[in-house]
Amino acid sequence: MKISILLTGNELMSGDTVDTNSTYFAQSLKDIGLDLYEKRVVGDYLSLLVSSIKELSSSSDILIVNGGLGPTDDDLTAQALADAIDEPIRQNTEAMSELQAWAKKRDFELTAANLKQADLPLSSEIIKNPYGSAVGFYAELSDCLVICTPGVPSEFKPMVEEQVLPLIQQRGNLDVQSTITRLRLFGVTESGLQDIVHAKFPDWPAEIELGFRVQMPLIEVKLTTHGNENLDLNKQWTDHFSKLFSDYIVGHDDDRLPQVLNNLLREKGKKLTVAESCTGGLIGSLITAEAGSSQVFEAGYITYSNDVKTSLLGVNSKILEQYGAVSQQCVEQMLAGALDLSGADVGVAVSGIAGPDGGSAEKPVGTVWVAWGSKQQVLARRFFIPLSREAVQRTSAAIAMDLLRRSLLGLPTDIDYFSELKRKNKLA
Amino acid sequence: MKISILLTGNELMSGDTVDTNSTYFAQSLKDIGLDLYEKRVVGDYLSLLVSSIKELSSSSDILIVNGGLGPTDDDLTAQALADAIDEPIRQNTEAMSELQAWAKKRDFELTAANLKQADLPLSSEIIKNPYGSAVGFYAELSDCLVICTPGVPSEFKPMVEEQVLPLIQQRGNLDVQSTITRLRLFGVTESGLQDIVHAKFPDWPAEIELGFRVQMPLIEVKLTTHGNENLDLNKQWTDHFSKLFSDYIVGHDDDRLPQVLNNLLREKGKKLTVAESCTGGLIGSLITAEAGSSQVFEAGYITYSNDVKTSLLGVNSKILEQYGAVSQQCVEQMLAGALDLSGADVGVAVSGIAGPDGGSAEKPVGTVWVAWGSKQQVLARRFFIPLSREAVQRTSAAIAMDLLRRSLLGLPTDIDYFSELKRKNKLA
Repeated sequence: MKISILLTGNELMSGDTVDTNSTYFAQSLKDIGLDLYEKRVVGDYLSLLVSSIKELSSSSDILIVNGGLGPTDDDLTAQALADAIDEPIRQNTEAMSELQAWAKKRDFELTAANLKQADLPLSSEIIKNPYGSAVGFYAELSDCLVICTPGVPSEFKPMVEEQVLPLIQQRGNLDVQSTITRLRLFGVTESGLQDIVHAKFPDWPAEIELGFRVQMPLIEVKLTTHGNENLDLNKQWTDHFSKLFSDYIVGHDDDRLPQVLNNLLREKGKKLTVAESCTGGLIGSLITAEAGSSQVFEAGYITYSNDVKTSLLGVNSKILEQYGAVSQQCVEQMLAGALDLSGADVGVAVSGIAGPDGGSAEKPVGTVWVAWGSKQQVLARRFFIPLSREAVQRTSAAIAMDLLRRSLLGLPTDIDYFSELKRKNKLA
Repeated sequence: MKISILLTGNELMSGDTVDTNSTYFAQSLKDIGLDLYEKRVVGDYLSLLVSSIKELSSSSDILIVNGGLGPTDDDLTAQALADAIDEPIRQNTEAMSELQAWAKKRDFELTAANLKQADLPLSSEIIKNPYGSAVGFYAELSDCLVICTPGVPSEFKPMVEEQVLPLIQQRGNLDVQSTITRLRLFGVTESGLQDIVHAKFPDWPAEIELGFRVQMPLIEVKLTTHGNENLDLNKQWTDHFSKLFSDYIVGHDDDRLPQVLNNLLREKGKKLTVAESCTGGLIGSLITAEAGSSQVFEAGYITYSNDVKTSLLGVNSKILEQYGAVSQQCVEQMLAGALDLSGADVGVAVSGIAGPDGGSAEKPVGTVWVAWGSKQQVLARRFFIPLSREAVQRTSAAIAMDLLRRSLLGLPTDIDYFSELKRKNKLA
């Protein structure tokens, strides 16, 4: 089944708006085992819209038209589809009552422009839109089902999930139910994962599609099977996969690392502190970006200068002279000081050279020391992250959070993070 | 002149890669006063590529094909263009020597797959690629100039600027030189700007295109004129515009707010500290994301709990009892404490309710107090930002940095930030 999408709107053509709808649609199709065949984007020109609808409907079984359903003059989709089918547009009774209900609920008076949104191609059927005034609609054109959808992402996405995908499955006689398991991993790369799966699972079953998607700093792994008969297979291989990668799996579905750490701290009733040098507050800001973080986060210390490391966190000035601020001794004392000062139960500390300047032969840019632990035990490790300033900061923040997560769970903390970092790491 | 773009690659169709090349290209076209007519995206299927090239070249004067120039089997652009023109592909001598020079420079042995990259449609001319192994090329097809370009953004973008745009200008006899002035504003919205320009400059000259682009948290304003005869006009109206909006202009070109603040502090020889509650380290992380921030940034205090506000920064516990942590008294004492503790010259402090919970009738979610100043003078203002948790945090961090920037420059700090925030602000 060939499925294409036509996106309309001058704002997409000018580059002012980046299209995320088609990406979302393609990924939703993939989830039910289908591919997108062709994607076109055109501005709001009636003749171009008509010819694009005609061409795409002759080469596709299903055509999604996205955008151009609004009340203004440049919203031309209904007219364009009617012209392509060669039929008139008429006021659609169902669309009209949807529109009236929508307005009533919002105590909103419908204008002439609004009423235009109920004028649809004669043969079309409507798709209700619970999230906006523009109903969707679909009609037949040269053996192609043309489905017109709103351009606003918050209206488009639920319409795809709830109504467009079922229409597509019905059209293709696809009553197949897909099972999707999503896992989220930290500390391993996409290509690393792929290699390990190849090596360890030579008998990986063809019935299970294995997909990877980078969701910085995590990797999302997706196991997709189709049909109820493969439900158990999905479970079984999710178990195999999870066992092999247990060290790297931090969560599932839409889990984020700071969120997982927040939840873990809340479950264990532990309070957190951070002492940050080269990350400059990034770890604190990631933790507190999560709702409810005030239950677990106590205080953070951004000790950027050496003086403040000493005066605030009590790092011994002799240590700084002898080993420098980027040293095991320094991060350990930073963390000890932060735990002491805040009264928190656990914490992390980071000190490194984020660059672009400040590196030396012994400690090149990208050298980072991370400490984690509690008053009972503080541990530290050195990492080498030969990347941009931003990547050094983001990666060391993520590593610090993951090391604390591991230690809270009793997992090993001597894990190899990112094989390519290690390969590039001349110091390891 | 009709200009279209055809993007190729399965990774674009599957939604795994978000296309930024076409956005970049559209914006570059706009800079020389041209529009994009149609955009298509197709997977790596030869027949679909051939038919797309044929269709687009018959409806356009210039067609950019992007992607599919690499060495692997799914790189089909040269073959597709040759098929569309109906001519053979041959090894192109110039392409071959480019390829060899590229390999030699990298001490790299060319494989059979690499050599394929020199096989081009017979009638094509090459476009050199200083940043990668794949040369670009162009050829004529039914009165359309078809220009094939690499998909890697870091190779595509310079090729567009340096070689593709001149080719397009030449084709259209556009020897017009464009002048572009880019300004960056904070604290005013796109629609607010538009309204003020309409009201204050009814005689805005048609020769100057005025463009707005949101670059959170800033707005970029672009004044574009074409031709040398409009050079003075551009300067003159940039002056008018800058005068009217002087309060909001934080920089030009690619300036960022934390970078502008870093530079200003460096120029004035001032050291900075931050005391953050609801922003949880975000201001520190934004400041230290800039290279060289260690010259101006001293220390930061993430005082998330009330206890730490008192124990670390010396906020009077009676103040917290009487007025709460989200109060003028609290942020002023937070900042005074941070300045004292760090020895820094200037600073900002933020305390607010980022949500989604924690609001009250008197202090709803989105209520934020910001303090700024020095040991000599600490000032504070209350804001109401009825947005998401993330937006409350990002907006209050930006406002805090901007207020300090203003006070360092002697600009008024009682400015109205964001008219719509103000409109929504029932407390103002």
